[in-house]
Amino acid sequence: MNALLAEMTELIGPQMAGVDALFHKELKSDLACVNTLIKHVSRFRGKMLRPSLVLLSGRACGNLTDAHTVIATVVEMVHMATLVHDDVLDEAELRRKGATINHLRGNEAAVLLGDCLISHSYHLCSSLDSQFASRLIGKTTNEVCEGELLQIDNRNNYDLTEQTYLDIINRKTASLIATSCELGARLAGATDAQIAALATFGRSIGTAFQIQDDILDIVGDPRTVGKTLGIDVEKGKMTLPMIHFMNTAPAEHRVLLRSLLERNDSDKAERIRNLILPSHSIEFARDRAKAYVDKARAALAELPDSDARRVMDLMAEFVIARND
Amino acid sequence: MNALLAEMTELIGPQMAGVDALFHKELKSDLACVNTLIKHVSRFRGKMLRPSLVLLSGRACGNLTDAHTVIATVVEMVHMATLVHDDVLDEAELRRKGATINHLRGNEAAVLLGDCLISHSYHLCSSLDSQFASRLIGKTTNEVCEGELLQIDNRNNYDLTEQTYLDIINRKTASLIATSCELGARLAGATDAQIAALATFGRSIGTAFQIQDDILDIVGDPRTVGKTLGIDVEKGKMTLPMIHFMNTAPAEHRVLLRSLLERNDSDKAERIRNLILPSHSIEFARDRAKAYVDKARAALAELPDSDARRVMDLMAEFVIARND
Repeated sequence: MNALLAEMTELIGPQMAGVDALFHKELKSDLACVNTLIKHVSRFRGKMLRPSLVLLSGRACGNLTDAHTVIATVVEMVHMATLVHDDVLDEAELRRKGATINHLRGNEAAVLLGDCLISHSYHLCSSLDSQFASRLIGKTTNEVCEGELLQIDNRNNYDLTEQTYLDIINRKTASLIATSCELGARLAGATDAQIAALATFGRSIGTAFQIQDDILDIVGDPRTVGKTLGIDVEKGKMTLPMIHFMNTAPAEHRVLLRSLLERNDSDKAERIRNLILPSHSIEFARDRAKAYVDKARAALAELPDSDARRVMDLMAEFVIARND
Repeated sequence: MNALLAEMTELIGPQMAGVDALFHKELKSDLACVNTLIKHVSRFRGKMLRPSLVLLSGRACGNLTDAHTVIATVVEMVHMATLVHDDVLDEAELRRKGATINHLRGNEAAVLLGDCLISHSYHLCSSLDSQFASRLIGKTTNEVCEGELLQIDNRNNYDLTEQTYLDIINRKTASLIATSCELGARLAGATDAQIAALATFGRSIGTAFQIQDDILDIVGDPRTVGKTLGIDVEKGKMTLPMIHFMNTAPAEHRVLLRSLLERNDSDKAERIRNLILPSHSIEFARDRAKAYVDKARAALAELPDSDARRVMDLMAEFVIARND
């Protein structure tokens, strides 16, 4: 992991610093109250997965331009907007080891901060010469919203199918990661085949990433993950391990899971964890995630050999190896 | 009012029908749950002030194009997104005589529906050839967010100045109305002077519109206005009549207003209304709104005489004559 970070710094370090600078410059306001809130959200910054992928995809297909820095900043803003609004949705009390905005300042501030981030992302995106990126970002955020709505619509649907689960995470998570890779490639003048390959790469690791997130929500250590766990269970969100369990566990175990899901006990998440852990359902979900990672790595074969391609290959593996 | 509507139908009727059709076409999803939610929001459609102004501004400066229909739809989507998110903020129980989204399906659905509307508005906007409109819409939504945050930051600030109040409504309400006029003019090939005049027109009637809204929140008849009144008071929002009252009323009246504002009694809004009505503070606010309407009408002198200009002149008057 440290070697991966060192290589990334070598390859895209200056541009990542540029993303950081642009992020703060764009969000700076003449209003003190806005700056206070924005300053707070900066502490939530996480893995910077999406900006890294814009830059690495660009590097893997050609040269990086100023437009890459712009788009890398845009996708990070979009991602942070979804995190902030997810906090309103989730009522999560912790996110990335910092207090969440909604907990700190109320739902109103969280809604507005998310709106502020999304607005600035579109504003920044439309500073580019071509409409292409704006159009694709808009299409992607449409998809993200639909994924979130589909998820809410299936809350407490304990018979959720694997297909609908995949549809949800494809729209909600994978689409923005696919778009990050696609735009990085396009802005570097990639061929159509390379663009398609990187979109596949992004969509596949995005899917694997979300499955891993859902696994960690059940098996993770709260001190490592740094956010409230058991949220999926609390909010009636069925994830891949639970879906598999519902389809394969002995009848009495399924009945027990369903009755636990329907209850509101404080030890609900823990009891579900203890029920699912001894089954094969976590392993099943890990295998599924692994298959998406394999698909992502295979897509990289379309690109010429390069340090950037090699780093992306390592990142794909890391997506399911991480424990936070 | 009926004559005004008849003239508007004559001037921009087909384009308004086009806005309606495009609105529904753009928001249509392959997901049933998204369509259900979107269908619900359509019932919230209100005065269509912003799309009308895009089209009338275009007509007043030249010919209407397909891009006018696109932008008129975009600004209505942006406006509806702010209404939906305002409902999360306001916890209003009624809006436009329909149940609000947050009351009906929870804050989560309201947050996501607002996000969905704003996302589609940017996606649609970026379908135009030029980035110009996208950039201005992004700048405007940045301003709207800042206005909302400034408003929250001043909640329960009973010493709010008129200047900060005007700063809030300028960003929160007037900016999108100014942008509607400006884009309508630009897309019709208006001169710089005409564009500037229409931006002034929009900003001025936008300011007047919000002052009138705030007056109606105190003096309005809930059955006519069709939304929960006294919301400003409930949420600790100081508006122009209250600010004036705080600065001019006899000392014992100010003390009474402040103590009423600090309480949470169920008859709070009614008692504040009864305190302010006999004063000159409503009249003061009406005069201020009237001055903005006069400024708006004066700006129209920059345009050639036309039916569209005459209708805009009538609209400016109507903004402060309306009681809903």
